[in-house]
Amino acid sequence: MSEPRIVEVRQKILKRNDMLAADLRARFRDAGVFVVSLVSSPGSGKTALLEKTLACLQPQLRVAALVGDLATDNDANRLALSGAPARQITTGAVCHLDAEMVDNALQGWELTGLDALFIENVGNLVCPSSYDLGEGLRAVLMSVTEGEDKPLKYPTIFNSADAAVITKIDLAAAVEFDAAAAVRNIRAMRPGLPILEVSAKTGDGMDEWLAFLRSRASEAAVGAGPARGR
Amino acid sequence: MSEPRIVEVRQKILKRNDMLAADLRARFRDAGVFVVSLVSSPGSGKTALLEKTLACLQPQLRVAALVGDLATDNDANRLALSGAPARQITTGAVCHLDAEMVDNALQGWELTGLDALFIENVGNLVCPSSYDLGEGLRAVLMSVTEGEDKPLKYPTIFNSADAAVITKIDLAAAVEFDAAAAVRNIRAMRPGLPILEVSAKTGDGMDEWLAFLRSRASEAAVGAGPARGR
Repeated sequence: MSEPRIVEVRQKILKRNDMLAADLRARFRDAGVFVVSLVSSPGSGKTALLEKTLACLQPQLRVAALVGDLATDNDANRLALSGAPARQITTGAVCHLDAEMVDNALQGWELTGLDALFIENVGNLVCPSSYDLGEGLRAVLMSVTEGEDKPLKYPTIFNSADAAVITKIDLAAAVEFDAAAAVRNIRAMRPGLPILEVSAKTGDGMDEWLAFLRSRASEAAVGAGPARGR
Repeated sequence: MSEPRIVEVRQKILKRNDMLAADLRARFRDAGVFVVSLVSSPGSGKTALLEKTLACLQPQLRVAALVGDLATDNDANRLALSGAPARQITTGAVCHLDAEMVDNALQGWELTGLDALFIENVGNLVCPSSYDLGEGLRAVLMSVTEGEDKPLKYPTIFNSADAAVITKIDLAAAVEFDAAAAVRNIRAMRPGLPILEVSAKTGDGMDEWLAFLRSRASEAAVGAGPARGR
């Protein structure tokens, strides 16, 4: 369970990742691009939310997306339909993105030509929490179909996030979702964490989500937000 | 992305896990206990299916459950309501169970007093695939709410499984689930993999699931099933 050697090797990798992520964060800041990462279980609706988000933010904002999966480039193809540049990162057996994968995927993209970059992580509520990607905002999604207890059972990922997004709220009644319990569980892990509720399908809550993103992007642009590092 | 040292350390850990799992498998066989593990995304309904399964199999079969989570013992408490012995394994930051955790959790349990043992893994579609737990049957669950593409995007876990269970079929219409596409995607990864469809909520498909388990348990008991090792 706790092999001293793997812990030591892992710590070195995390330290190296942190350094690469700090470089990325500086590049994003210098280029004036606001970077949002999305983490969640598989099937929580990251891609659906991102499709809608990219469509709504354009053409006012110049946006792009990177999307991680173990296999297939299905999601990048879906996101590219929005007209925004989208690239797939296939991780093979690796259960999360890391800063080096992001750095490699950005090759050839002129960051100054972007206002916002979205990074969709591999569907996983555990592994992505430890890997800083240089993002300015990390949003953890949980769908109403997953149950209200996820923040209690996967505390680390909620602790690494800057916002929680409850997705698929159009299904809340069908699955007897207890929104008050979900909010209580999120708050138990992270008092004060902003919580948004959306349905990418019906559009409910999208205005609040987009306003939240625009507000955070503006704060970052004027340097009003605190410097950030995990 | 591919650090030679972590690959080497990981291979040693996996090899050690395989040896422990082989010991467990021999103990399970000698004790005549059929062991089923469940893997899936967080929130796919592993615990709900297991609650119903434990309730239905008793008292004809003597059953017990181990359940893994990063934090909380909520699931063991839920499962214990069935009257079956249930123990929680809390993994901390570890994204999967391993054979040593299972071995430790079995301390003090008389295996010969059991007919079947269920092991619910941490909710994760990536990490658990590499860790043999000595089980006789590994079932991968995917809920209709997660989308039909999961087998393509998480091939390794489908390749490590002995059966696929499509869960929450009561919600299929609400989420416009394309069952034919899901089955096609599973078959593309694993031709011939048994596929079951259940709703723990309505009970639909439970008879087939229970019959499948009983049939596999009987095969294992008479040694009709092939010796198994990952």
